[in-house]
Amino acid sequence: MSTILVTGANGFLGRHVCRVAAAHGHYVIGMGHGDWVGDAWRQWGLSVWHELDVTLASLVGHAGTPDLLVHCAGSSSVGFSFENPAQDFDRTVVTTRDVLEYLRTSAPETVLVYPSSAAVYGSAATLPISEESPIAPISPYGAHKSIAEDLCRSYSVRFGLHVAIVRIFSAYGVELRKQLLWDACRKSVTGDYRFGGTGRETRDWVNGEDVARLLLLAGDHAEGGLAVVNGASGTEVSVERILAVLLDALGTGRKPEFTGTERPGDPERVVGDASRAMAWGWSPQRLWEEAVREYAAWFREVAS
Amino acid sequence: MSTILVTGANGFLGRHVCRVAAAHGHYVIGMGHGDWVGDAWRQWGLSVWHELDVTLASLVGHAGTPDLLVHCAGSSSVGFSFENPAQDFDRTVVTTRDVLEYLRTSAPETVLVYPSSAAVYGSAATLPISEESPIAPISPYGAHKSIAEDLCRSYSVRFGLHVAIVRIFSAYGVELRKQLLWDACRKSVTGDYRFGGTGRETRDWVNGEDVARLLLLAGDHAEGGLAVVNGASGTEVSVERILAVLLDALGTGRKPEFTGTERPGDPERVVGDASRAMAWGWSPQRLWEEAVREYAAWFREVAS
Repeated sequence: MSTILVTGANGFLGRHVCRVAAAHGHYVIGMGHGDWVGDAWRQWGLSVWHELDVTLASLVGHAGTPDLLVHCAGSSSVGFSFENPAQDFDRTVVTTRDVLEYLRTSAPETVLVYPSSAAVYGSAATLPISEESPIAPISPYGAHKSIAEDLCRSYSVRFGLHVAIVRIFSAYGVELRKQLLWDACRKSVTGDYRFGGTGRETRDWVNGEDVARLLLLAGDHAEGGLAVVNGASGTEVSVERILAVLLDALGTGRKPEFTGTERPGDPERVVGDASRAMAWGWSPQRLWEEAVREYAAWFREVAS
Repeated sequence: MSTILVTGANGFLGRHVCRVAAAHGHYVIGMGHGDWVGDAWRQWGLSVWHELDVTLASLVGHAGTPDLLVHCAGSSSVGFSFENPAQDFDRTVVTTRDVLEYLRTSAPETVLVYPSSAAVYGSAATLPISEESPIAPISPYGAHKSIAEDLCRSYSVRFGLHVAIVRIFSAYGVELRKQLLWDACRKSVTGDYRFGGTGRETRDWVNGEDVARLLLLAGDHAEGGLAVVNGASGTEVSVERILAVLLDALGTGRKPEFTGTERPGDPERVVGDASRAMAWGWSPQRLWEEAVREYAAWFREVAS
């Protein structure tokens, strides 16, 4: 049994990491902001919850020396980053500075896993996107994720910290209360089936549970320096296709319609090369159609 | 006449930028921390001095909408960055975030010139180092300078700010009260002529006045996006040779001796390709031997 600290444990990814870690028998400590009802955090596998800003002082005061720290706290919206770039920077980069400084000064043996994003690649010229593809973000969100990675690299190389970076593609699944599938579920309630973009944009959809397993596995590969791995399914699915499956599962009897207008920061096509993660023994366990139907069922439950 | 705001105007580079800008007839405003005696800032060409932390609030409250902002505030020591990486990050990156956010929200037409550093290149495999050479810092200081550049790029590309980045090589000259030449002057007073390293390390020494002229010129090249230029003399001079000239000018009659031990974060050889700056019409005006003798004379004056 290891001790695992999860920052941002109340978020979409954080919840899945906590639940998967607890299911593997680990002792899980959470830190961040929760809107938990009572001790609802216990159902996600948390043994301890610290309701605190993720700062250097909070970490030095409360984090101890866990075996693994998964830093899920941070910004999570490309749109928000265009409207509020400085806040997005603070949430992503400044919290990461604090995590790294806490590790350097107080817990140098703790392994750090940093959930980064495929947004660091921007609109890749060549698909699938490998870990060696050029870093060329096209949104403040992606730029800040890339900067947080650089900071991880600097601390890892200069101060001997053990860090693994997982560049997550389009994570989705139950508990995700934003982005495309959530918006589509909510709009369907009002009979709205129109979406931005052309529908022909593609994404590499990767289930939250699968991502959580990879984040925990990545800790084993951080020994000896900085490791970088894509958190991708390796499968390219269009927005139109995933929405069609979702609207069908919701029982709408409708197909999605598209406005044709593009959004800034949205690349046209995305698919990741998952071979490095697979060489580590990871593979996505969830077929996307099945997981999208599960998402629709979950939405009907939480919306009812 | 333009209005020019200089952050960190009391520092080595800041002082030279203010004096050169005032000599060109510009109206110069300074912001930062000063240990000025009375209104000694006036002798450096400043018309206004704001004794303030360089923060978003200070800038929004006091900076107005200058034609040009030269952001000289920030960290300036490789050694300090190894001892205090989080503080080094704050001084370099967080102040730059605040400058960029101020420009985005309050002064989008103001041109920003950011004095970066050759430390972003690390130990370059190929010399001379051009602006297209790989970014591979080997110190927290260099990593943070590279991160500040990335933030400039993100704001410039995403929000249409006009930014020029000048990667300064080994700047030196009167008013520099730290680093090799200063240390050598101070040690010579006590009869100490021993230095770290081998003496065979080379640097591209570039005079503070020449750098100041390039920083002001760079503003003209920021229109239309992000410009990057080396602030280099294009001349490679060893540490042993520059110290020999300095010790001679100080009248010590001694030659420098070396311990042979290397310092982390110090590359072996550095020389910059200055051709882009020269294509802009800039060239170094000061011969290094003459400027080193001037530095020795200045030291004897301030030390007396």
